[in-house]
Amino acid sequence: MAVVELFGTWFSPYAYRVIWALKLKGISYEYIEEDIRNKSPLLLQYNPIHKKVPVLVHDGKPICESTVILQYIDEIWPQNPLLPADPYDRAVALFWIKFADDKVYLMSKLYQADGEEQRAAVKEWLEMLEVMEEHALIGGKKFFGGDEINMVDIAFSFVAHWLGVLEDVVGLEIFEPHKFPRVSSWIQNFKSIPLIKENLPDADKMSAFSKHGREMMLASKSN
Amino acid sequence: MAVVELFGTWFSPYAYRVIWALKLKGISYEYIEEDIRNKSPLLLQYNPIHKKVPVLVHDGKPICESTVILQYIDEIWPQNPLLPADPYDRAVALFWIKFADDKVYLMSKLYQADGEEQRAAVKEWLEMLEVMEEHALIGGKKFFGGDEINMVDIAFSFVAHWLGVLEDVVGLEIFEPHKFPRVSSWIQNFKSIPLIKENLPDADKMSAFSKHGREMMLASKSN
Repeated sequence: MAVVELFGTWFSPYAYRVIWALKLKGISYEYIEEDIRNKSPLLLQYNPIHKKVPVLVHDGKPICESTVILQYIDEIWPQNPLLPADPYDRAVALFWIKFADDKVYLMSKLYQADGEEQRAAVKEWLEMLEVMEEHALIGGKKFFGGDEINMVDIAFSFVAHWLGVLEDVVGLEIFEPHKFPRVSSWIQNFKSIPLIKENLPDADKMSAFSKHGREMMLASKSN
Repeated sequence: MAVVELFGTWFSPYAYRVIWALKLKGISYEYIEEDIRNKSPLLLQYNPIHKKVPVLVHDGKPICESTVILQYIDEIWPQNPLLPADPYDRAVALFWIKFADDKVYLMSKLYQADGEEQRAAVKEWLEMLEVMEEHALIGGKKFFGGDEINMVDIAFSFVAHWLGVLEDVVGLEIFEPHKFPRVSSWIQNFKSIPLIKENLPDADKMSAFSKHGREMMLASKSN
């Protein structure tokens, strides 16, 4: 039987993308927790370019970059497909996955910013939420692809769970549910799926961890 | 017969990715030139999120983002495949395509910078070339995937043709062939393919166009 290993970090939204995909497919795997401040030689060997989690190792062969891993998983284990079967629908899904992936940097942008930079980061977050609301979630859909969770939901999960933590860390309310009713419903739908709900990093623990890190970071910036 | 239309701009490395893919597949299409300073209502309708070229319109349905378009083309027209058939090899190819795509911003970064920012941009370019040389092109391959051009070569084409123009525009030599012998060979191999050689935007014309634009941009920055 094939050996599947996943290198992750307990708070990484990228690693959780892979965790959920493997669980949705019913694939058992060994999880290896990485300390991002003291990366293992194996992680550096498997991902010499980016030196980051997640790395999926399948039969000894490493795959890096969460969206690449998700596509690989979907091809190797076709049960419970994560992408639509129709080529055009798949292209639309891949468009939104790229859109989401290109926006995850907004997490570190907001985390690291204060003052004018913080206002600029908030503006970008709101623009992204507006696009989700007005373009990606139209048509009364439960999830991005319709009635079932797919890879687009997984790609946007940083909005569903990590943004709330970030708001607590920086002390701002960015996501006002009444302004984004479709995104708000989607978050509820997404986090209601048992497999997702049961596999989310603890928000309080992430918040405490991130607040401490941010205080140190801002203090070193102002020195 | 299906109608294929491509919205592009004459100097866009992203649009050329799609042009080559369609030509490699032997697909005839109608090319629509967009003026990026005066975008057409149709472009804005087809790509309301990014408002950018390229957009491929197939049977009236738009597909945006060049790497998404390339995957769509490869699925719809499987002749002369642009991605490896083996799932692991395909994941490796998609890793490098993402790597390349995440680095195209270095073109505008270098184009817009001067002084300290310019030195930082040059450093990033050299780091990227080093990764291509030491990780992506090892094993005496003619192209990234072996003996035949594939989607990875197409994704890295901004290094093969546009970087030289950029060097001329900013007045710097960044790519010294003797320091990157594998990348240098790859550029020669890539540009020797008749279909590529015969379908490249004119370097002198791009250089003149970009020099003018850059002078205006730097002048407005210093005011």
